[in-house]
Amino acid sequence: MKNIYLDNNATTPLREEVLEAMMPYLRESYGNPSSVHSFGKKVRQAIEAARETIANALGVTADELYFTTCGTESNNLALKGVAFSKIAEKRNKIVVSSIEHPCVQQSAKYLVNKGFNVCFLPVKPDGIIDIEVARREIDENTLIVSTLYANNEIGTIQPVAEIGKIAKANGALFHVDAVQALGKIPFKVGEFGADMLTVSAHKIYGPKGTAALFIRKGLKLEPLMHGGHQEKRMRPGTENPAGIIGFGKAVEEVLMDLEDGTIERIRSLRDRLQDNLLSRLDEVKLNGHMELRVPNTVNISFKYVEGESLLLMLDNKGVAVSTGSACSSGSLEPSHVITSMGIPAEVAHGSIRFSLSRYNTQEEIDYAADAVVEVVNKLRDFSPLWEDFKKSKQ
Amino acid sequence: MKNIYLDNNATTPLREEVLEAMMPYLRESYGNPSSVHSFGKKVRQAIEAARETIANALGVTADELYFTTCGTESNNLALKGVAFSKIAEKRNKIVVSSIEHPCVQQSAKYLVNKGFNVCFLPVKPDGIIDIEVARREIDENTLIVSTLYANNEIGTIQPVAEIGKIAKANGALFHVDAVQALGKIPFKVGEFGADMLTVSAHKIYGPKGTAALFIRKGLKLEPLMHGGHQEKRMRPGTENPAGIIGFGKAVEEVLMDLEDGTIERIRSLRDRLQDNLLSRLDEVKLNGHMELRVPNTVNISFKYVEGESLLLMLDNKGVAVSTGSACSSGSLEPSHVITSMGIPAEVAHGSIRFSLSRYNTQEEIDYAADAVVEVVNKLRDFSPLWEDFKKSKQ
Repeated sequence: MKNIYLDNNATTPLREEVLEAMMPYLRESYGNPSSVHSFGKKVRQAIEAARETIANALGVTADELYFTTCGTESNNLALKGVAFSKIAEKRNKIVVSSIEHPCVQQSAKYLVNKGFNVCFLPVKPDGIIDIEVARREIDENTLIVSTLYANNEIGTIQPVAEIGKIAKANGALFHVDAVQALGKIPFKVGEFGADMLTVSAHKIYGPKGTAALFIRKGLKLEPLMHGGHQEKRMRPGTENPAGIIGFGKAVEEVLMDLEDGTIERIRSLRDRLQDNLLSRLDEVKLNGHMELRVPNTVNISFKYVEGESLLLMLDNKGVAVSTGSACSSGSLEPSHVITSMGIPAEVAHGSIRFSLSRYNTQEEIDYAADAVVEVVNKLRDFSPLWEDFKKSKQ
Repeated sequence: MKNIYLDNNATTPLREEVLEAMMPYLRESYGNPSSVHSFGKKVRQAIEAARETIANALGVTADELYFTTCGTESNNLALKGVAFSKIAEKRNKIVVSSIEHPCVQQSAKYLVNKGFNVCFLPVKPDGIIDIEVARREIDENTLIVSTLYANNEIGTIQPVAEIGKIAKANGALFHVDAVQALGKIPFKVGEFGADMLTVSAHKIYGPKGTAALFIRKGLKLEPLMHGGHQEKRMRPGTENPAGIIGFGKAVEEVLMDLEDGTIERIRSLRDRLQDNLLSRLDEVKLNGHMELRVPNTVNISFKYVEGESLLLMLDNKGVAVSTGSACSSGSLEPSHVITSMGIPAEVAHGSIRFSLSRYNTQEEIDYAADAVVEVVNKLRDFSPLWEDFKKSKQ
């Protein structure tokens, strides 16, 4: 049985070097980093070193970086932390894109109930935010603009510099969810002037349970939780040192992937998979922008096929893919990301996300492509709609 | 250099068996538990098995247990989740004790700003909630009563069954923070009829970064975060499977400590330390109730001594203790727990918490006692107040 994991936008395997860096903090260095004694101080130093590493990687200062427990928490903190702060006294419009992760979508919807006016910016058929609409919608009443840097389902890279400029011109805060961008494209926060930015460890071969939010110095958010003095009271509760230290190591390592050719190898494997599928199967559609896209992701709609069936049959062949965000799995609705691009629900239902990692090999990719072709053909053989379509072409 | 860790109420070392149980989920089983494919399903099953184990241990059902990332988060969710829910439409009083953990104290204070009426129940000089005052304060306008089961600083065990009865009689919800009770005293939630209960992994030889909140079936809280469907939308965000699975194992193992004599061995070491210090030093005071106390904790005020200096000098001798909650460390204020018992600030300042674990040995305890006696004597030699006191006794 094969074990080919092509769902790395859902989560990645832990890098061996990262696990090694974590182990001392799961064993002998078990102190509470808030403790004053040596057991605590040793751990505190390691946490602060990790903070420094990640802050440097993002081009921000260490005191602007706050550890949280997942991207969802960081994004909730960014949106609600601003909405419930004094900053919101004079502005009440929140602008997000229509293809945000569920946590930004749901937080925005929650804020509608709290009296905020939320605008979901449409995307063009290629999955890129319509900048003209953004220009119209972001105004002097806009409190915060929040967008994914790279979309989790289709990998599309948003024009964050342009959006940031529009936000700034209107005095609005700008939050970027860079969870799927970190380690896939090089960036520094200063390039697009974000006031807040979310990153997460488990998408870059780090541990689950640790993420961070950059909050520009001087910006005073209302925390989601209240308690001890941890993370300057922005996120109280005993830290997870092994997770944080693993995150630091993961960032350090993944930045090297951007420079040593690893990311280009991933891109060429992704392109190989994509070319293989698009050339061997009819009635397939690449979702999202062809170029403005992170190198590890390809999302394809296989018409006349149900994505969930395709996923399960691929799983039987040892190939792991997904139909969309893991946070939305189990839902019978078609992906809001795909339908937002104007793709009809019946086509959206047949969409599959392939997301690669540094650990995938060419052999795996070729096996996966063969498996997809075989399964799609088999599923179509059972489909009366496919039968009709073929007849109509004759 | 010795390494004697007597700060186990701040955090505990990870149990070897727990780490072993976690390792597969840090290595080969890295799937996202929300993923539909086999990589995900395998992890989902292990998470649900852990949930079942912990629920059984608490005497609740698995679907009443929600994983969070720390006790602070669970406690925030309990208090704010109720306060911001529909349940709060008809009642607006929140009753907590005056010796709660900072996270309950600060959450309660935050809710004062949101229009809630918060009552801090006083404790008697032994650190036990004054039940007569509780009876007067908990009324038909009371939304929720929240108390620690065992106090983190002095170990005092509260009469949760009585308080629960009063809450129930008034139609108020009852939340118990059992973080410091689990594994130290046997209990089932049904014994005191809690509607919500907080437990945390890293206080019972489990990993940092994982905790849980029991929420009685039918009780609808407003989540702190919004996003994916994880934890039935009560706590969205990718789970930390290694943490959760470690938590399950930690609970399983710590319950055995309650039955196989381990906890009694800890108690006798604690008593040995306590007797040693109380008999060899003058002007010392045991804080909290002598009997109604978890077996691993002893808190002593060393008069004419500054706790922080004592802590640091003990640290130099390789003995780790604390002056109070790790979540309050670094604060120059005396512990609110100690002063709430009516102890004057200058005595409260000289308080030290010793909290033992299953890993402490008699040799360590005797070394620690000698170190404390030596350091206290040395510090008092420098104290003009001690000089004056001795003269007044002559």
